[in-house]
Amino acid sequence: MSVLRLFIEADLAAGGEAPIGEAQVHYLRHVMRRDEGAKLLLFNGRDGEWTASLSLRGKKAAVAIVEARTREQAAEPDLWLCFAPIKRARIDFIAEKATELGVAVLQPVLTRHTAVDRVNLERLRANAIEAAEQTERLSVPEVRAPIELGRLLEQWPAGRRLLMCDETGGGPPIAEVLAALDPAARDAPWAIMIGPEGGFAAAELEALRRIKDVTSVGLGPRILRADTAALAALACWQAMLGDWRKPTPRLSSDYRTSKVTR
Amino acid sequence: MSVLRLFIEADLAAGGEAPIGEAQVHYLRHVMRRDEGAKLLLFNGRDGEWTASLSLRGKKAAVAIVEARTREQAAEPDLWLCFAPIKRARIDFIAEKATELGVAVLQPVLTRHTAVDRVNLERLRANAIEAAEQTERLSVPEVRAPIELGRLLEQWPAGRRLLMCDETGGGPPIAEVLAALDPAARDAPWAIMIGPEGGFAAAELEALRRIKDVTSVGLGPRILRADTAALAALACWQAMLGDWRKPTPRLSSDYRTSKVTR
Repeated sequence: MSVLRLFIEADLAAGGEAPIGEAQVHYLRHVMRRDEGAKLLLFNGRDGEWTASLSLRGKKAAVAIVEARTREQAAEPDLWLCFAPIKRARIDFIAEKATELGVAVLQPVLTRHTAVDRVNLERLRANAIEAAEQTERLSVPEVRAPIELGRLLEQWPAGRRLLMCDETGGGPPIAEVLAALDPAARDAPWAIMIGPEGGFAAAELEALRRIKDVTSVGLGPRILRADTAALAALACWQAMLGDWRKPTPRLSSDYRTSKVTR
Repeated sequence: MSVLRLFIEADLAAGGEAPIGEAQVHYLRHVMRRDEGAKLLLFNGRDGEWTASLSLRGKKAAVAIVEARTREQAAEPDLWLCFAPIKRARIDFIAEKATELGVAVLQPVLTRHTAVDRVNLERLRANAIEAAEQTERLSVPEVRAPIELGRLLEQWPAGRRLLMCDETGGGPPIAEVLAALDPAARDAPWAIMIGPEGGFAAAELEALRRIKDVTSVGLGPRILRADTAALAALACWQAMLGDWRKPTPRLSSDYRTSKVTR
């Protein structure tokens, strides 16, 4: 049976007991059929990844007995994804894929032409956690509450660069723009901004262009849906500026987790 | 009411009558509530994009009266996506996203560790058509029948480069590899190969490495699901070698289609 990988909130240290939430206990016991002593891999976004074993404490409660560290926590790119909320399946998809692609922050942004104005943050976070668990990531992106575009731009952090993907066209090619950045820009914290399906309003485009370090780019001659644009921009950013620039470590086959795609 | 955009098989020329299939007539009349004379945009992958108007011929039949060309057919990158079939929602997703990202051919490949051995080609093709209709693409990728990896490699076309995304790690960074290609390699036809969730078998990896023009790349330190890897590799390829290198045309607002995300 493959080793299950879980995100938990508790601290992780050798010999410690990490409480497992009730929903996770249910998942372990009744969905994945794990029993007393089952091997786990745990991460909390702070202490790296640890082997552990399941210790049941009654019908609905359990702890993990933490054993040994398998990976150290490593620094991750400081990249935000700012996106206008879209329909349910596509926003689930953004949370999942953006997690796999290594964003640090998921920031829903309300714009004039945003079609959807409610966001189920718990659901977004659950999607992000599941993606992190299943794809060896050592952290879970922060899911922020939706914010109006105007307010987000008013309080835009000094020094954070903004990569704007404007599907109304006219942007210069993304690879050319990213390749031409100076070293300070390459090493800066970044945010990727994806417009709503209806496009930005003229006043919003103006406000965006007033941000000091904004870089507009185009993503080719076909119109991309908002979720595709988000993913494509993230992949290009990671490949050209992010942590895909380092050679990837070869995986050991020990303690590798099941890659069940639920 | 926004103008609907349809892919049809018929030839398109000014003044011509293009037959509309029964399923499309149902969609136009009963899903999208279009009536006699409704404006359409049509494309067939050969003759560019045309305005047309709906002409009903009874309860279930209709033709489009073709009016004027809005866009010329343009050459598209000769890029294949070779992928091991995966579960239903994720394979739908690959067909949709790969279409938006401009692949010419979708080639399912059966490998030793492929989890799914049946592929619903009609469904893949329907997803590709819908994505092309909704995202301004002028063609629909060819959906090929599944083929065993060994057979695909035996008949590999001379001169077609193979970009291999191997999630077991160890590949050099994709941006570095693509940036270092010589002009002949940049201009060659390409295929992107994404392994199955269970990874390639050792014998398969050997067979892949015997292909003359194979280039292995890594997609960063996080393990990507097969669908995410496909998308990420396509985005990087288009950005660095494909048609995203040209500045994107600014869209006119005339005759722009609804971007309903079904």
